[in-house]
Amino acid sequence: MDAAIDLTDRSQALDLANIRAQLIRLEDTITFHLIERVQFPLNQTIYVPGGVRIPGSDLSLMDYLLREQERLQSRVRRYDSPDEHPFFPDALEEPILEPLEYPEILYANNVNLNHTIKQRYIEEILPSACPNDRVDRGASQENYGSSATCDVNVLQALSRRIHFGKFVAESKFQENPEKFVQLIKTKDKKGIDEAITNMKVELKILERIKMKAETYGSDPALAEYRNKVDADAVVSLYKNTIIPLTKVVEVEYLMQRLKGTQWE
Amino acid sequence: MDAAIDLTDRSQALDLANIRAQLIRLEDTITFHLIERVQFPLNQTIYVPGGVRIPGSDLSLMDYLLREQERLQSRVRRYDSPDEHPFFPDALEEPILEPLEYPEILYANNVNLNHTIKQRYIEEILPSACPNDRVDRGASQENYGSSATCDVNVLQALSRRIHFGKFVAESKFQENPEKFVQLIKTKDKKGIDEAITNMKVELKILERIKMKAETYGSDPALAEYRNKVDADAVVSLYKNTIIPLTKVVEVEYLMQRLKGTQWE
Repeated sequence: MDAAIDLTDRSQALDLANIRAQLIRLEDTITFHLIERVQFPLNQTIYVPGGVRIPGSDLSLMDYLLREQERLQSRVRRYDSPDEHPFFPDALEEPILEPLEYPEILYANNVNLNHTIKQRYIEEILPSACPNDRVDRGASQENYGSSATCDVNVLQALSRRIHFGKFVAESKFQENPEKFVQLIKTKDKKGIDEAITNMKVELKILERIKMKAETYGSDPALAEYRNKVDADAVVSLYKNTIIPLTKVVEVEYLMQRLKGTQWE
Repeated sequence: MDAAIDLTDRSQALDLANIRAQLIRLEDTITFHLIERVQFPLNQTIYVPGGVRIPGSDLSLMDYLLREQERLQSRVRRYDSPDEHPFFPDALEEPILEPLEYPEILYANNVNLNHTIKQRYIEEILPSACPNDRVDRGASQENYGSSATCDVNVLQALSRRIHFGKFVAESKFQENPEKFVQLIKTKDKKGIDEAITNMKVELKILERIKMKAETYGSDPALAEYRNKVDADAVVSLYKNTIIPLTKVVEVEYLMQRLKGTQWE
């Protein structure tokens, strides 16, 4: 099953079955990268500006790596893609590759929740996912770079997953424009939130993510290598961060959806 | 179970139980990253120098990203660590972080199999791991950057896994120096290879890696998302590339092991 969605193909990009496959696939990606990250201690210092001194920069070590990674990836046009959102927009450079032709899929919008995603990740997700016995091991700096490298992978996957809410929202809007136009015109955010919420689906996601964290986090052959990641921490990541922030993305996207259209 | 080995601690780094735990943990890492890669088509073009035109460079797109990634990571001292080996040594910069104190664990050596690892990866591993039906999809360039980004992760994990053979070799040497000194002095590579080979362990690895590829490659909740990676291709990666190249690393490391010692 090929889950990679092609965003240069408009009909693919707004097909709810394709979007669902992509979101399910991203559950694996997020779980894999988080399992990689939590093999290292929390290493709190790498998130503190100045915690590791970086010449010519007052960023934290993790922010430094994330920013430089975005700069590099912007050159190969990562941020041309409508499902990618930078954490450091000011670091982006002009792509060195020829631009791709993306059809107009999403309406113009400025929704970018990366600041909140990063904050939640550092303050809530990591402390709960890195077991306590690793928190204070940190006299050694040996895994600072490895930890930050994994963080970049996790954060980019989280950002992609959460901002995919824009495609979900656009697809739902097109299914029933009358209903959404009315809610949007009356600025009824609560009504929009209710219209896009499906509690049954959300519960299914949480059940599934628990199974994934347990399965992917356990060596299938060696009992002593179980629970590489705390499954409850991954469930809580979905319950308290990914699902609610995705809905914020959907609502905020829809609030901007009528600008410049027949419905404005 | 915390599998991250601390290479600033000499007793940890040469303890065979720790090395084994690290190698087993790297099986997960390699499998995860490979699963991420094969969600995209083969995209052969990204491995061909000039296939994607890069201004001011005659590298392939994948090599360009790998080289720039190494440049960035060298700044946060990735290549100071004795288990890391660059694919592009000429791209490395001076670390911007204070150096760590690594004890002398390995003897000085110039063993670096990255050229062979990359060649095998591009010519054998990828074509067998990316299902045929994706090979020719490639009119769209949409996933070129994503594919190459995954490649960098896989290649770095493969390189780390294979060059960990140096720690295995050093540990085995210290267990029985007399035996190895004699084999090394008579340049008996075949004898060294036999002394470091344990067929029973190798078979166990292959069994385990098949289970991992099947387990991590299948969504535990949704039957339609099975076989994200071809388990036989992962087994063959271990059987034909990782295990034999690790042994080459061990043998070549040992061949240099007596230089400057009492046994020379």
